[in-house]
Amino acid sequence: MTRGLFVTFEGGDGAGKTTQAQLLEQWMISRGRAVVRTREPGGTEVGTLIRDIVLHHRGEVAARAEALLYAADRAHHIATFVRPALERGDVVIQDRYLDSSVAYQGAGRVLGREEVRDLSLWAAEGLLPDLTVLLDLDPAAARARLDADEKPFDRLEAEKEAFHQAVRSEFLASAAAEPERFLVVDASRSPEEIARVIRERVALVLEDGPDEVGRAD
Amino acid sequence: MTRGLFVTFEGGDGAGKTTQAQLLEQWMISRGRAVVRTREPGGTEVGTLIRDIVLHHRGEVAARAEALLYAADRAHHIATFVRPALERGDVVIQDRYLDSSVAYQGAGRVLGREEVRDLSLWAAEGLLPDLTVLLDLDPAAARARLDADEKPFDRLEAEKEAFHQAVRSEFLASAAAEPERFLVVDASRSPEEIARVIRERVALVLEDGPDEVGRAD
Repeated sequence: MTRGLFVTFEGGDGAGKTTQAQLLEQWMISRGRAVVRTREPGGTEVGTLIRDIVLHHRGEVAARAEALLYAADRAHHIATFVRPALERGDVVIQDRYLDSSVAYQGAGRVLGREEVRDLSLWAAEGLLPDLTVLLDLDPAAARARLDADEKPFDRLEAEKEAFHQAVRSEFLASAAAEPERFLVVDASRSPEEIARVIRERVALVLEDGPDEVGRAD
Repeated sequence: MTRGLFVTFEGGDGAGKTTQAQLLEQWMISRGRAVVRTREPGGTEVGTLIRDIVLHHRGEVAARAEALLYAADRAHHIATFVRPALERGDVVIQDRYLDSSVAYQGAGRVLGREEVRDLSLWAAEGLLPDLTVLLDLDPAAARARLDADEKPFDRLEAEKEAFHQAVRSEFLASAAAEPERFLVVDASRSPEEIARVIRERVALVLEDGPDEVGRAD
């Protein structure tokens, strides 16, 4: 039986995660693999309910409560959806996973990188991706992609810019700490070029066998 | 300014926690203290929403997700309700806290005692009660109190009985590990006798100063 493969896409909004996930899905299907596409937060019905709490009470949910709610979503999603798919031998392509939690919480500086990572890994019973693709892009370039009607750069925008720069740095720090699990791609390149680099790396992971590559426990 | 005091009541259903919390509240008020009564799970609006998820999806929520949801409820309740009350100098009397999480999860044997305790303490930023009153009662006696129309002892009931015996053992193990924080009372005694024992211990804690007694962080 074919072993499952767990690939996650990380990076800021506007970096092209959805496009690249679609291209990878098509390529894996063309190679005869069963593919499941999913996302966090909110990949399950329970996750949607959890997300409603965080979003409807934004500003009033204590910081640790919010981190625990996202971890609960992750625990349920991984246990009931991702692990069963991997055990069937499917390829799971997921938009955002624990590296997003670490990067966004780390950039917000309320909770530490290590405690957020430990919480996520406890929630997921240690499941790490076989491959994490970080689509790295300067936040200003990402914003230009997302918002054609860009407004003048006022003080609030400057704060947002600093936050997104911090998120980018956190993602790059995670990638530097685990070079075997991560593929960092310059997201300003063309979608076709990026897709080719990702396919080459996925092919290597499949040759080596996913068990060998960065899977904990 | 008077320092706050954090007292929790633990024990199985039917052990008399509500009665004793009321009696302690009346006594503290008679001594001129401001008292807040609360409970977990569900002491806040966010907590009620979290509890709805756990209850409406029972049997379909992954074990770690459920533990994380309860921890999120705790994080929010402690940060937004209990800590502010303690900082005002109030007496907080709470029905169930982390020792219930440890006892019920430990008895269910899905998650370990230590990891459940660590998760709770992370959620609560290390807040331990100044005093935890464990109302200890044989589960058969508790059930007789709760259910006058007791049915014949079938197999399901035997399993429930074993579970409640395991919960009782877990509570007693927690109390044995932290004798300074815990007061264990035989809950088969009269409510008046129990209330007197509790008042004596609370008076000692107040004399020593709550800062000296088992508060972490």
